[in-house]
Amino acid sequence: MAQKPSIPKGTRDFSPVETARRNYIFDTIREVFRLYGFMPIETPAMENLSTLMGKYGEEGDKLLFKILNSGDYLAKADKSLIESGDTNRLAAQLCEKGLRYDLTVPFARYVVQHRNDLQLPFKRFQIQPVWRADRPQKGRYREFYQCDADVVGSDSLLNEIELLQLIDEVFSRLNIRIAIKVNNRKVLAGIAEIIGHPDKIVDITVAIDKLDKIGVENVNAELGERGLTPEAIGRLQPILAISGPTDKRLSALAALLADSETGLRGVEELNAVLHGTRELGLRADLDLDVSLARGLNYYTGTIIEVKALDVAIGSITGGGRYDNLTGVFGMPGISGVGISFGADRIYDVLTALDLFPEETAKATAVMFANLGHDEAAAAMKALKEMRAAGIAAEIYPDEAKMKKQMSWADSRAIPYVAIIGESELAEGKLTLKNMTTGEQSLVDTAGAIGIIGA
Amino acid sequence: MAQKPSIPKGTRDFSPVETARRNYIFDTIREVFRLYGFMPIETPAMENLSTLMGKYGEEGDKLLFKILNSGDYLAKADKSLIESGDTNRLAAQLCEKGLRYDLTVPFARYVVQHRNDLQLPFKRFQIQPVWRADRPQKGRYREFYQCDADVVGSDSLLNEIELLQLIDEVFSRLNIRIAIKVNNRKVLAGIAEIIGHPDKIVDITVAIDKLDKIGVENVNAELGERGLTPEAIGRLQPILAISGPTDKRLSALAALLADSETGLRGVEELNAVLHGTRELGLRADLDLDVSLARGLNYYTGTIIEVKALDVAIGSITGGGRYDNLTGVFGMPGISGVGISFGADRIYDVLTALDLFPEETAKATAVMFANLGHDEAAAAMKALKEMRAAGIAAEIYPDEAKMKKQMSWADSRAIPYVAIIGESELAEGKLTLKNMTTGEQSLVDTAGAIGIIGA
Repeated sequence: MAQKPSIPKGTRDFSPVETARRNYIFDTIREVFRLYGFMPIETPAMENLSTLMGKYGEEGDKLLFKILNSGDYLAKADKSLIESGDTNRLAAQLCEKGLRYDLTVPFARYVVQHRNDLQLPFKRFQIQPVWRADRPQKGRYREFYQCDADVVGSDSLLNEIELLQLIDEVFSRLNIRIAIKVNNRKVLAGIAEIIGHPDKIVDITVAIDKLDKIGVENVNAELGERGLTPEAIGRLQPILAISGPTDKRLSALAALLADSETGLRGVEELNAVLHGTRELGLRADLDLDVSLARGLNYYTGTIIEVKALDVAIGSITGGGRYDNLTGVFGMPGISGVGISFGADRIYDVLTALDLFPEETAKATAVMFANLGHDEAAAAMKALKEMRAAGIAAEIYPDEAKMKKQMSWADSRAIPYVAIIGESELAEGKLTLKNMTTGEQSLVDTAGAIGIIGA
Repeated sequence: MAQKPSIPKGTRDFSPVETARRNYIFDTIREVFRLYGFMPIETPAMENLSTLMGKYGEEGDKLLFKILNSGDYLAKADKSLIESGDTNRLAAQLCEKGLRYDLTVPFARYVVQHRNDLQLPFKRFQIQPVWRADRPQKGRYREFYQCDADVVGSDSLLNEIELLQLIDEVFSRLNIRIAIKVNNRKVLAGIAEIIGHPDKIVDITVAIDKLDKIGVENVNAELGERGLTPEAIGRLQPILAISGPTDKRLSALAALLADSETGLRGVEELNAVLHGTRELGLRADLDLDVSLARGLNYYTGTIIEVKALDVAIGSITGGGRYDNLTGVFGMPGISGVGISFGADRIYDVLTALDLFPEETAKATAVMFANLGHDEAAAAMKALKEMRAAGIAAEIYPDEAKMKKQMSWADSRAIPYVAIIGESELAEGKLTLKNMTTGEQSLVDTAGAIGIIGA
């Protein structure tokens, strides 16, 4: 029996309509990236495992897809690892390459590898798939696209302001209403510093994040469980109590962080980014969120996160500033800042809100029916003229029943059908049928081009 | 010491200029695919190995990149295979997935898997990378793009005529002069049949192919070495002697293949395809080539191959008709025909002939210089207006020396630089410098938009 075909779990096929809709997202993002002066690069799907390993934490290492070496992959393997079942170390001997896990680490590798050909600051965008051996679940895939824009080699906060405007422009074009939250890693470091627990940044931000949901008493209890001293919890209280409009919160933060140089610098940066962006006018909500801490080990300054206002789906774009990413590849002291659009979640938002433009589902403007050898030959000539006029056109390739041909055109949402039968052939004309209105007109090819192109 | 970064051999990074040039090729092909009514689909980079294995011959199986199973990949492995060193069988236990080797087998899998959602005939295009563990060499990579268009579910020869026109249109848009060679697998089968060696199709076509280079006597000697009887070689002589214009060769073939039903059908199909296409007018050379046999085990009818006339680089596009491709996945009786553009070789041809349009290297139309906080703030406002007018614009993010900023703009081939210094700031204007002519004008933002957009 023939095998029943399927694809690996967590991966997807994309039909013509789905592909067209995804391209609508990619094209929109790409166009805005270009408008902002970002230039496209592409990197290979496979990277050396030495490039990828250790960049995403221990958990991330496990989620890398590894590629078995070609040829005799066992030759160089230490057989004792097989007996001891040390699959991690053995994998490193069986596999030299892995699929990229994100676009940021390959970009850092790119910058270092091509440093002599690049003029810093370097602004690049990259729209490519990434792979993670995550447990597949709703909205989480093993192959998905990231759309990244980064600037490296500049620590100017103008870059942050540019990226926030860029985010605003993309979602405005997609008609998705968003809220942008901004934070700064230095503020979090400052808070941890002044309460005397510089090592507890993660616990502190998790606690702040839960404040609205579980209340200050439960937050304090949890912080105690996480090993914060009562004294530290006490010092955190004024920070948990900060509220009000952005500027008021920033001033309160500045006062509370007066003893932390790092913390104050964070507040200054937030001030510059928030005010600089607002001054230029933004359609999206933009606000400070001190609990925001995504990818903490990675970011060193500004942290950005975007959520859709009308669909509950988590973050649809995120990013921030990182100061040390190229250091691990031997090029220290290069600051970078970037954002990543999550195309798959944006797709889900557009679907939920029914926001895809109708024309993304359409392709061909006119289908010629096929009514026999001579008629088809005439249709092929007309087809050629249509295409020369820029009209996407095709012919039903087989001489099938008219009903079948019409239903095929219908299933593909083709707006016009051109019919050349015996009488049209004799007259050198065609009957053009509008599939929406049912209206028919007997015209020559030029006339049909005029109607379809209108 | 930090690791020195590199990428796996046979893979490539693409710089902004290279990416823009590749996109020029992809966009051109995509636009023509759409004009001809093909719709885009995408399939995952990873397929189940059961989908890929056995589809590309024994050699092809070895060239598949296999992905190590996640988690305890040794658990299900037969340890005796490790001792016996049977790496092939062991690999099948360590790996369930592989990277796709081409786009045709995944497409056949797609058609069968989604058969209930498809209206046949189904016309799809697909532009995605494929991976092969080939020995890397000049012009041969381990990751490269294919650009495929196929029609399945129709055996009409109109599809072949459409695809030949499509090829002509693509290369005409790219300004590459080409020769298209066409053959038919049934003609090759017919020749093998009438000389009494139906199993020797490959040897016969190889011999015909060498005719021009080594002469008829050497060809006959080689056929003898390959096991053809003197009688069979004798019967082949009239076929080797066929020459002259296409129609004369087709008639001669028809006469010689009179006793082979299959052979005659092949000649008829060639006749219909060649005449049908020529009648519509083609810019490319189009001719019959009886020695053409690419991917023989795969094609069952028409075979197509395209070469560039002005660069010696081998085939830059190829394709043909296959009748049995979905059969292996449990859906027999579906005929398909398709073509595949080799983007990497097309890139090399365009480079060799210096045919990339100049604008593909450009991106940003204007760079604002950064002359300090207040000046940059004014520039950010002007920048916003420029972008709203559709002009790709950016600001040099750091307050660096003017010379450095200008040389950065220059290195990126940015045609205009806008300068807002102290005096421009006071006047509410900017100095716009044309980087080609050196011309400068003091204008307001609207005026600059007028000049740049012109």
